[in-house]
Amino acid sequence: MIYVTRKEHFNAAHKLHREDWTEEKNLAVFGKCANANWHGHNFDLFVTVKGNPNPETGFVIDLKLLSELIREHIVEALDHKNLNLDVSFMKGIMPSTENLAIKIWEILDPYIKTEHCVLHCVKLYETENNFVEYYG
Amino acid sequence: MIYVTRKEHFNAAHKLHREDWTEEKNLAVFGKCANANWHGHNFDLFVTVKGNPNPETGFVIDLKLLSELIREHIVEALDHKNLNLDVSFMKGIMPSTENLAIKIWEILDPYIKTEHCVLHCVKLYETENNFVEYYG
Amino acid sequence: MIYVTRKEHFNAAHKLHREDWTEEKNLAVFGKCANANWHGHNFDLFVTVKGNPNPETGFVIDLKLLSELIREHIVEALDHKNLNLDVSFMKGIMPSTENLAIKIWEILDPYIKTEHCVLHCVKLYETENNFVEYYG
Amino acid sequence: MIYVTRKEHFNAAHKLHREDWTEEKNLAVFGKCANANWHGHNFDLFVTVKGNPNPETGFVIDLKLLSELIREHIVEALDHKNLNLDVSFMKGIMPSTENLAIKIWEILDPYIKTEHCVLHCVKLYETENNFVEYYG
Amino acid sequence: MIYVTRKEHFNAAHKLHREDWTEEKNLAVFGKCANANWHGHNFDLFVTVKGNPNPETGFVIDLKLLSELIREHIVEALDHKNLNLDVSFMKGIMPSTENLAIKIWEILDPYIKTEHCVLHCVKLYETENNFVEYYG
Amino acid sequence: MIYVTRKEHFNAAHKLHREDWTEEKNLAVFGKCANANWHGHNFDLFVTVKGNPNPETGFVIDLKLLSELIREHIVEALDHKNLNLDVSFMKGIMPSTENLAIKIWEILDPYIKTEHCVLHCVKLYETENNFVEYYG
Repeated sequence: MIYVTRKEHFNAAHKLHREDWTEEKNLAVFGKCANANWHGHNFDLFVTVKGNPNPETGFVIDLKLLSELIREHIVEALDHKNLNLDVSFMKGIMPSTENLAIKIWEILDPYIKTEHCVLHCVKLYETENNFVEYYG
Repeated sequence: MIYVTRKEHFNAAHKLHREDWTEEKNLAVFGKCANANWHGHNFDLFVTVKGNPNPETGFVIDLKLLSELIREHIVEALDHKNLNLDVSFMKGIMPSTENLAIKIWEILDPYIKTEHCVLHCVKLYETENNFVEYYG
Repeated sequence: MIYVTRKEHFNAAHKLHREDWTEEKNLAVFGKCANANWHGHNFDLFVTVKGNPNPETGFVIDLKLLSELIREHIVEALDHKNLNLDVSFMKGIMPSTENLAIKIWEILDPYIKTEHCVLHCVKLYETENNFVEYYG
Repeated sequence: MIYVTRKEHFNAAHKLHREDWTEEKNLAVFGKCANANWHGHNFDLFVTVKGNPNPETGFVIDLKLLSELIREHIVEALDHKNLNLDVSFMKGIMPSTENLAIKIWEILDPYIKTEHCVLHCVKLYETENNFVEYYG
Repeated sequence: MIYVTRKEHFNAAHKLHREDWTEEKNLAVFGKCANANWHGHNFDLFVTVKGNPNPETGFVIDLKLLSELIREHIVEALDHKNLNLDVSFMKGIMPSTENLAIKIWEILDPYIKTEHCVLHCVKLYETENNFVEYYG
Repeated sequence: MIYVTRKEHFNAAHKLHREDWTEEKNLAVFGKCANANWHGHNFDLFVTVKGNPNPETGFVIDLKLLSELIREHIVEALDHKNLNLDVSFMKGIMPSTENLAIKIWEILDPYIKTEHCVLHCVKLYETENNFVEYYG
């Protein structure tokens, strides 16, 4: 078993804010992240798959294909977008890095399975100081 | 003469979009950066000052003070903000990285001068692949 | 279950040296790290906690709070300090990166538990080429 | 149990190409990596060992020794070499990052065992966007 | 005047070797870089242009266009290639980082001029420890 | 004219403290950097030389030689040392990053001149957020 990782990135706006809370509570819980007019990040996304190398190619997965799967299903939907307003799979979901990583996992998982390997980890950096990992 | 640099950072949302242009022209010129609902970045800001080291301290400028000047006058105004909507000194100015770097220079310049050194360069990264430098 | 990581840093001096060994043995075992007058490092500290996101906030832990816990209990004690002389919780302990990571874990663990998540990993970089991980 | 990692690096040329395939199939499967005249990379290698710190030194392993083991047995064989032509332990093996990581593990494993700790992971970066991990 | 930089990258093989020298002299001068079967690198390329921002767009140059110019004229020719054998503009030229940076400048310069700005600097990293800069 | 840079690094302890000042004044001016028992850093050193490439080798300077010059004359004196106590060329000099960069320049300059190129810049990082540049 070997683990193979591809890094991609996207830039997006979001805010952490609940409509059913007062502004005071939003500010108390989410601080600057509740700014009404949004803020944004350069997100770095690391997708790790695991499997055995194909004896003919030496590949667990063709990294060009893994890159294309991530770009088609994830980056296309998120890059230069507003995570609260523009992204169908985040509708009604608080766009924390945790929740975003979980949704990315759920979307990518079936596409990876068809390539004779399985999704192992989605690691998502919001900044160089803050990141999350989800293993399904 | 020696050059001293301090790095700070801020996260912000923006869009590149002109109200006096059609959506077609905005899209043609600014591409994904024109997204109506904004996008955002982790900006890295490098401020360089030049001068002669103070013989008593060995400092051109106290880097703690330089950090405080940048945080008070720049980061406070930009961090977790919308560059088009929330920032008084960017009102009416296209928030390209170029224009933002020029404004940061203009704001910081008088504060640096009072510290017996002069501002040399404002270097602003929008992403790790794109950055600008302004020397006044 | 999702894993959330916060990066903090501190700068410190130390030496690797045993009083009960001859200088020859200290030099043979610890090499340049035994230098009598100390040396130092920029340490990067990554603290990972795990848990389920709070349904209301989408957070496993408020990263601002995690940052404050690390700064109050760890960085305050270590930053710009001598690990052999100035740090009460390292008294009598060889300040290798391994031992320092174990002590950081022991100190942070009870504070993380009170936040409805658990400490998963303390990762400590002594240089970009050398780091350790401790999982309790 | 604590995990200790040392980073080393080497620069090498390779191509991904099977003599028993047509040029068309090589190009279809390996793309630009099949270029007949080779291409190359700066490889970053992270070797992680695990064990309990020696009570006298605070070390799981002397990192200077770990560095020397990696340099003697791995970097010496790979640095500024052609992975397809110059490396005895890669003869007849497709030089994918996966296969190279597996061979590095197999070569290092017995040397680490003699140091009272065990090899945990070989992590190999081909580029900053592509890397693999092998745990034996 | 403001300076705008775009980073691109390519992976290539090369060797430093003169046919008109003995193997002993090649080895004495070029060391491991003379390896007959090539070695390679992940090259990072930073292209800096200078000019005044367009008042309508805030851009010195559209960075998407700058990226396309670099990819079309430079990366396409160098990526996953052998610098000694596969690159027409390097024929007969020792593929040192210095010489490669000079050729990249000469090729890009006329394309930048047509965009109402001028080429300022080509900065080329062979490794994270070695890089060159050329200003024309 | 082309500029060639080599990166080296060293780890050292220091404090910023004047014997002829009271403790109160030292603390007021130097803050945590005045800690009596020292602190330390991983310093990154970038040395840039300029000249014309040798037509036979394509080199402004052999980077292996530049690395050796820096290691012999600078790193050997500073690595795993105390900048206030252990370094002859820093005796009586406040070990600020500024002053250390100036001394590194003065020491390296004559050695570079003998290689048919000249020293252009010494750039010294104390942390990833703080660095200085000296051009002689």
